[in-house]
Amino acid sequence: MISNDPATVAAPLTEYIAAAQHTLILTHVNPDGDAVGAALAVWHVLGILGKQRTAMLMPPIPVYAAWLPGADQIVLYQSGMALPPADLAILVDTAHLTRIGPMYDEHAAMLATLPVVVIDHHVTNDGGASLNLVDPDAASTCDLLYRLFRAMGVPIDRTIATCLLLGLTTDTQSFQTNATHPESLRVAAALLESGADHARIIRAVYYGLPASSAALMGHALAGLRYEDGVVWTTVDKRMFAATGAEEEAADEVIRVLQRIGEARVMALFKERSDGTTKISLRARAPLNVAAIAQRWGGGGHAQAAGANLSMTPAEAAMVVVPLLKELAASNAL
Amino acid sequence: MISNDPATVAAPLTEYIAAAQHTLILTHVNPDGDAVGAALAVWHVLGILGKQRTAMLMPPIPVYAAWLPGADQIVLYQSGMALPPADLAILVDTAHLTRIGPMYDEHAAMLATLPVVVIDHHVTNDGGASLNLVDPDAASTCDLLYRLFRAMGVPIDRTIATCLLLGLTTDTQSFQTNATHPESLRVAAALLESGADHARIIRAVYYGLPASSAALMGHALAGLRYEDGVVWTTVDKRMFAATGAEEEAADEVIRVLQRIGEARVMALFKERSDGTTKISLRARAPLNVAAIAQRWGGGGHAQAAGANLSMTPAEAAMVVVPLLKELAASNAL
Repeated sequence: MISNDPATVAAPLTEYIAAAQHTLILTHVNPDGDAVGAALAVWHVLGILGKQRTAMLMPPIPVYAAWLPGADQIVLYQSGMALPPADLAILVDTAHLTRIGPMYDEHAAMLATLPVVVIDHHVTNDGGASLNLVDPDAASTCDLLYRLFRAMGVPIDRTIATCLLLGLTTDTQSFQTNATHPESLRVAAALLESGADHARIIRAVYYGLPASSAALMGHALAGLRYEDGVVWTTVDKRMFAATGAEEEAADEVIRVLQRIGEARVMALFKERSDGTTKISLRARAPLNVAAIAQRWGGGGHAQAAGANLSMTPAEAAMVVVPLLKELAASNAL
Repeated sequence: MISNDPATVAAPLTEYIAAAQHTLILTHVNPDGDAVGAALAVWHVLGILGKQRTAMLMPPIPVYAAWLPGADQIVLYQSGMALPPADLAILVDTAHLTRIGPMYDEHAAMLATLPVVVIDHHVTNDGGASLNLVDPDAASTCDLLYRLFRAMGVPIDRTIATCLLLGLTTDTQSFQTNATHPESLRVAAALLESGADHARIIRAVYYGLPASSAALMGHALAGLRYEDGVVWTTVDKRMFAATGAEEEAADEVIRVLQRIGEARVMALFKERSDGTTKISLRARAPLNVAAIAQRWGGGGHAQAAGANLSMTPAEAAMVVVPLLKELAASNAL
C-alpha cells in the first residue's frame, strides 16, 4: 500500500507494530538531521507503546544530531555485523531499500523476509515496501511523522518533539527552502508547544562551527575569484594542515559561495590527499551543472553536482571554469 | 492607552485612522527589515482604506528590503526637510519617540501636536504615545501588525503579506532566535497562505552577499585567533582596499565568529579610516561584554557591545584580549 495521507496509514501501521516482537528502525547511509531525528522519534514512540526495538544507523551521526535524546541507544552498524532478530522493519527518510547501504547489501535476504514500512518525503521514492507513507510535499520526514503520530493517537512528548523539530529545522535550512509550506510552520509551532528544545537545536545546528573551520573558510575565501557570473575558489592540503580543519569545513566554504548574489554558478576546487581534485558545483535554477560534472564521470543534481578530476586544483580550474562561464552566460533563464 | 492585545487596540486605531486626513508613517533610524516591512505594511493598509499617507524613513534602507512593494514610494528623510502636513503619526518598531532621530529632533514641536500611535515589540518601549500597542512577546513588529490587521478586519493581500514576512523573517533570523514562539510560526504560515513571496525574501536576505564581502570575510577569518575561550580577528583598511568590500562586510565576519562553538567571547578589531579601531564584542549568555566596552567609552547590550579605541587594531587587541580571556574564564554561568 502507498499513501501520502497519514490518516490512511495510521491504522495499518498500528497493526504492524502491534503484531511485531522486535522492530528494526533504519535509515539511509550518511544520515542527516532529518534521518536521525526521524529514526529516534520512531524509537521513542515504539518505547512508549511498550515494544522492543533497535535503531541501527550507519555512522557517522552528524555532531549536531548526536546529542538528541536516545542517540546513545543507537546501534552503529559496521560492515559484517549481524542484524538483531526482528520481525518488522521501519525505514525512515529512505527513498529506496538500497539507500540503507551495507546494511541492505549484507542482509538483503533477511530483510526480504520482513514486512517493511517506509515513511519518507522524497519525490524519488518508489513505494516498494509493504506499507508506504510517502508525501513529496512534506518539508521533511520528521514533520510527516508528526502528522502520522497524531493520526495514530500517540502523545508527542518533549523528547519526541525535539527529535522531530531538529529534522524539520535542518531539512528546511531553518524554514528557508522552497519546501517550506504553511503546514511545515504549523507543525513546528505544535512541536514548540510540545516542549521541543528549540534553543538547543539552534545552538547545535548553527552555533557549533569549529574555529578551525572558520579559519579554513578564511584561507579559501581570501582567494575567491569572481568573473562573468562565476565565483570559485580553491581549498588545498596546505590550508587543511595550517588550520587543522576537518573535511566538512569545505562544505562551509561552498555555503558562503552559494550566498553570493551576483553569481549564477559557484565552484569549489578541493585538493585531495592524493593530489587530485574534487570539484563541487552549484548553480542558481534553472542553470544545470550536472552535465558538466558528468563530463568528468561525476554526477548529482541540476543545481548541485560534483566530480573528481585527475589533476591539480589549478589545472582543474583552468579547464572547468571556462565551461562554467559559458553556462553562466547562457540564456537558460 | 497601552495594550499588548491587538483586539483591544483595533477599534480606537480604526477611529484614529478614519478621523485623519493625512497620516505620517515613521520608524527608527537605521531601519532594519522589521522596521521597513512594518512601515510599508501600514502604508499599504492605509492605501486599501483609501487614506492619504506618507511613509518617511531615515536612509539608508537595507538592500535586502529595498525591493519590497511600495519601497519606491518611501520618502527618504534628510536633515532640514519639512514633514508633510499630517494629522496623525503611526510609529512602528519604535521604542521611544526620540528613536526616529533627526525627524524627531527637528520636528518635535510639530509631532507634539499630532495624535501618535505606536506599534512595537521592544521590551524597553515606554508606551508614551496616544495609543500604544506594545507586545514584548511578539517576535517582530510585523507579526504583531498581522494580528492587529486581522483584528481590524483588514484583508491581507500578497503585497502586505510579503512586507510582513520579511520583517518577521529578519527579526527572528529565520526563526532561530529565542523570541520565536508558536504564534510567530503560525503567523508565518498564514502569511505564506496569503501569498507572501517567501522565495524572494529568502533570496534577498540570505543570498545577496556581495562577492567582495565574501573575499573580505576570507582575509579577516584567515587571521583568526582562538585562545582560552576567546576568538578574535582583525579587519584592516588594506583588506577593504584589496577586496573593494563595503563597511557592512565586517558584520558578516562577526556573524561567523558568533557561530564558533568553542568560543564564549568573540571580538572583531576593525581599523577605521583614521587609523583608530572599532571593537565589536559578542558573548554567549550569561557573559557580559558591555562592561568591557564601557571602559573605553562604548556601550551596547550584555551579549553585543562595542567601542572605539584611539589605537591601532594590534594595540587594541593587546589591551582588550586579556580582559576578554579573563571574562571567558569567569564562572559567570
